[in-house]
Parts: sequence; structure tokens; C-alpha cells
Amino acid sequence: MTDHSSSFEIALRTAIDTKTKPVGALGRIETLAARIARIQKTLTPVADTCRLTIFAADHGIAGTGVSHYPQDVTRQMVLNFLSGGAAANVFARSVGADLQIVDCGMMGEPVPDPALVSRRIAPGTENALEGPAMTAEQLEIALSEGAALEATGTHQIACFGEMGIGNTSSASLVGAKLLGLPVEPLVGRGTGLDDEGVTRKAALLRQASDRTADRLDVKTALSEYGGFEIAMMAGAMCGAAETGRIVIVDGYIASVAALCAQELAPAAADHFVFAHRSAEAGHNRILDALSAEPLLELDMRLGEGTGALLAVPLVRAAAAMLREMASFESAGVSGPA
Amino acid sequence: MTDHSSSFEIALRTAIDTKTKPVGALGRIETLAARIARIQKTLTPVADTCRLTIFAADHGIAGTGVSHYPQDVTRQMVLNFLSGGAAANVFARSVGADLQIVDCGMMGEPVPDPALVSRRIAPGTENALEGPAMTAEQLEIALSEGAALEATGTHQIACFGEMGIGNTSSASLVGAKLLGLPVEPLVGRGTGLDDEGVTRKAALLRQASDRTADRLDVKTALSEYGGFEIAMMAGAMCGAAETGRIVIVDGYIASVAALCAQELAPAAADHFVFAHRSAEAGHNRILDALSAEPLLELDMRLGEGTGALLAVPLVRAAAAMLREMASFESAGVSGPA
Repeated sequence: MTDHSSSFEIALRTAIDTKTKPVGALGRIETLAARIARIQKTLTPVADTCRLTIFAADHGIAGTGVSHYPQDVTRQMVLNFLSGGAAANVFARSVGADLQIVDCGMMGEPVPDPALVSRRIAPGTENALEGPAMTAEQLEIALSEGAALEATGTHQIACFGEMGIGNTSSASLVGAKLLGLPVEPLVGRGTGLDDEGVTRKAALLRQASDRTADRLDVKTALSEYGGFEIAMMAGAMCGAAETGRIVIVDGYIASVAALCAQELAPAAADHFVFAHRSAEAGHNRILDALSAEPLLELDMRLGEGTGALLAVPLVRAAAAMLREMASFESAGVSGPA
Repeated sequence: MTDHSSSFEIALRTAIDTKTKPVGALGRIETLAARIARIQKTLTPVADTCRLTIFAADHGIAGTGVSHYPQDVTRQMVLNFLSGGAAANVFARSVGADLQIVDCGMMGEPVPDPALVSRRIAPGTENALEGPAMTAEQLEIALSEGAALEATGTHQIACFGEMGIGNTSSASLVGAKLLGLPVEPLVGRGTGLDDEGVTRKAALLRQASDRTADRLDVKTALSEYGGFEIAMMAGAMCGAAETGRIVIVDGYIASVAALCAQELAPAAADHFVFAHRSAEAGHNRILDALSAEPLLELDMRLGEGTGALLAVPLVRAAAAMLREMASFESAGVSGPA
């Protein structure tokens, strides 16, 4: 909660309102600037450098028919990230963000590429239809490895993305259990299921959901239904917040990770900037639970951190506005009569 | 109208749909990429370089009580642009856009700064409450000078902004007459009028509107009610389109200029990308008339081209997506089963 009577808050309000523009005329850019100022505890925030970390992992549940893409695509897309051809690469170059790819548990043999950061927990999770996706020990490793990754680097803005065929299923189950909701309203098309596919996916997720209580604490929800990439992202979000970074939250899966991070470390939520409203069906429920109003609404549903990257220029512009804009007084501009 | 059966359109659709992402997963970025490809007539569009031109002028109607800012603020803000302290400067630096400021008719003596591009038509328009704001000759000069400005420069993206105390009034009158609407639904708070101020402004604009027929052709509407900056911007939009540039349309006033440009040169509209939905009351009516769906919705209402600049990174990302992203085939990624 922001204490609007503190001297910092009063100075912040004054700084924004005396810039050479009508009060409020920059709308949500002003709100965003205030958030960044609070994160960095300064009236001259800097939000230039940015790193996108993409967490990749496989899901035991993916083999059961919840996705129409073959599970091999997780690995194929990681190779695509490594060779620079995916949307995340293109957008990262376009906004000048560094990119690191983390294997937190893909199926099969390790990819022998030194550019890939290896934090492999297991070759994919277990099938959550039948039992816990991961052990409590595996979860702790995922969370702590995620946090440790964000203890390194000099970036002011941390973006997170994910790759893992089946991970909208995992995210829906984790989200439903955290919120105590039935899973069905959180089931969407993922990579592009048709209506029949969504019905089949919902029935499978209902079966997985029925194994456990309606509401679970965050660690139980993650170990029962999580993916390694969702858990490691949640840990990384906590770590990035701890390190004082601005955390840009991507779409549906990243928002579920953010909900987990908020449960694990409530103060982390003060560092979140929500990038976009995904076209994935369950996103609005998760955003509501986070009291989040994303910056962009572009009907995107790709993941990989692509939405987060597109919000980076807005974050930079907001910080620059507060840091660099002249005041009425300094510029010699008259105010309203 | 796009002929979706042309070989170019088929190749464009195929190029976008075979990128390594589920079909449609980049949402409006895909639509934007297609628009840019059509503007540049290539499947490998480039949208990197950008120039923002801000047109500044004064309005005879500004002295009558339609704004609560003193008219001197037009000049003071131009000096602020020239010294780099306005929101437009900050955002231009933030997205790496060049900036040029054009005096198309401010009150008083010329500003003696060689960085200011002088295209002064007169020291402000006449008072549109009492008679035409400008002569037919002045309008022709404004349109042709605007077009000529865009014949120079190597920028792929042209953004346009404006500064002129009183120019929401001018824009509302021009917009109403072009659309054959009463002016009242197009009257908004401008720089921040209260309810009483809006009522007074609406009464004054009604008086100005009553001087002429309900619907006017574009040149009559502009000479009766236009500002020099609105007319010159309309000319510049036509010129930028003619030169093959992507034209990013800012907020309320720029959208009225875009409506004028579309009336003057219908093909110009194929070059428009609408940046944001302004908080100014009349913007939605103008956007509807242009069949425009802006990219951003950030409750901004500043003008100066600030909204246009914030859309630049989306335009760049969309072009880069089409130009640089790998296809399923080139990346060796499997498609859906």
C-alpha cells in the first residue's frame, strides 16, 4: 500500500504535476512513472537496460492431448531462440534487450550449446493427471535457482518469458488452485485449439484438478501442477524484486507465475508492471486477482516474453518523463489562468 | 481496399502465417506488419528511422475563453521544445526519433532560433467566431508547405504533433463540419477545462459553427475554422504518404488532420497507423469516421505527437517480425498435429 502522505509521495506527486503539461495529460504514463519512482526510490528513475529471460521446460501432461503441438516443439523452439529466429529474439533486438535462455527441464538429452543456461531439474515434469508434477525438493531448487539468476546482471528492467508445450494447462491448474476456482473458466485455446480441443483439454484438467483440494497453498499448487519454468519464473520474479528491478509481467503464464511470486513474497508485487492483456481465456481472472491493469491490449497470445518486451519502451518513456521533463518553472511556461 | 486475392496479398498472408508462432498469436502486431508491408510493397519492410514534426500556431479564437491557458503558452512551449524539456522531446529521445519544430504562424515576432523551421503564414489565425480563420490562399500555402516538408528527409516513419492554445476548438469545428455533426459532442476539456469551462467552450463553438452550413467540404472547413498547424499537418500527412512513409497519427487534433488528409487525398489513408485513443471527448467520433482502431489506450491527452512516439516501437517490432522471424521450415520447427 502506498502511503500518499509520506514526504516522498508528496514530492513525487509535485514532480509529476509540475511538468510542462496539463495535470494528468500523460494518463497512464504518469501512473507508470510513479510506480517506477517508488521501485527505485528516486524522483529521477532510470529504466534503460533490460534483460529477457526465457525459461523452457517440458510437461508430463503435454503427452495426454492438452495441446495440438507435438512436445518436441519445446526443444525446437529453444533451438530457434538460440539461432535468433523467434518472435522473442526479434522483439528483444527491436527494443535493445539482452536475452538469456534457461533450460529448466526439457525432455531428452541436454542441448549442447554453451549459450543455453542449463538449470535442468529433470527431463520434464511428471504427468499431473496422475500425481504431483514435481517433488517438494525439485520445487525448492526451481525457486532458488530462479532467484539466483536474478541476483546477477545490471539490468534495470527484468522481463520473463516461457516456452513449454502444455504450459497453459499447468498455469490454469496452478491458478485455479491458488484462487480456489474451478479450473474450467481458466481453460483456453493455448497455442490454438479448436472448440473440441478446448473441451477435451478442460475435461483432462478437471481430472487433474480432482486429485487435490479446491484451494492449495502456493508451494503445494506448484508441486502438484507446476511446470519447472513457471516455478523458476516465480523464483526469478521474487529475486528480481529483491534486487530492486522493475519486473515486467508478460501474458497468461507469466501472470500465474507473478501470482505465485506474490504469494511467496508479497513485496515482490510492488515491482510488477503488467505488459498486456492476453487473448488467452483465463488471463482476465488472474489479472483481477493481481489487481492488475495491463498497459497493452493487442490480442497477443504467444508467450516467450513477447508482450513484456513490447511494454519496455513505455517503461523507458515513463522513467524518462519523470527524470528529464522540464517543470513549468524551469522552462518559464505559464500555468492555467 | 485491399485485394486479398492478389499474389502480393497471398504471399504476405503466407509469410505471416508460417512464422514460428501459432497462427494469429501476435494479434494486432500481425495486422500492423501487414499494413507496413503494403505501404512499403515488400515482405521485408524496414521501419527504423523516425521523424516527429511539431507544427505550432496560434488561434484567433483562443482569446475568447475557449482555453484556460494563456495564449502565450504556445510560444513558451515552442521555446521548451527548442531547449529539449517537453514531453515530446523526452519521448523522441527515448524512442530515437528526430524532432523538427515548425512555426506555421505563432502570434508576435518570429522566434530567432535557427533550429526552428519557419513557415509562418500569419501571426495567428483570425477569430473563427466572427469570420473565416484564414483565407483560401493561406490554406493553400499551409497545405503545400506541409507537403513540401515531407518531401525531405530519409525517415521511414513520420510522426506529427501540434502545439497551439485553442486548437481543440479548431479541431472540433473542422471535424464537425467535415462529418456534418453538431459540434457539441466533439467539445472536450482540452488542456483541462472544468465542467463550467466546457459549457462555455461549447456555447462559443456553437456560435462559431452557426456561421456556416452544417457540412462543409474539407477546404472550406479548414479555411473557416482551421488552424495553420492543423492545415499544415494535413498537407504533411498527404506528403508523407506520397513519399511512401508510414504515418503515425497522434491524438484528437492529429486525427482531425488525418480526416482532412483523407478527404484531400484518399490514398493517404492507406499509410496511417493510429497511435492511441485520446481521453479528449471527441476523439472516438473522429476515429470512427476514419474506421481507425488505435494501438494504445493510455488515457493520454497531451498532443505534441507524444502518443505517436509511443507507438513507434510497436511499428518497429511489427516490421522486424515480418522481416526477421524464422519460418517453421527455416527453423526446423514442427507445426500443429
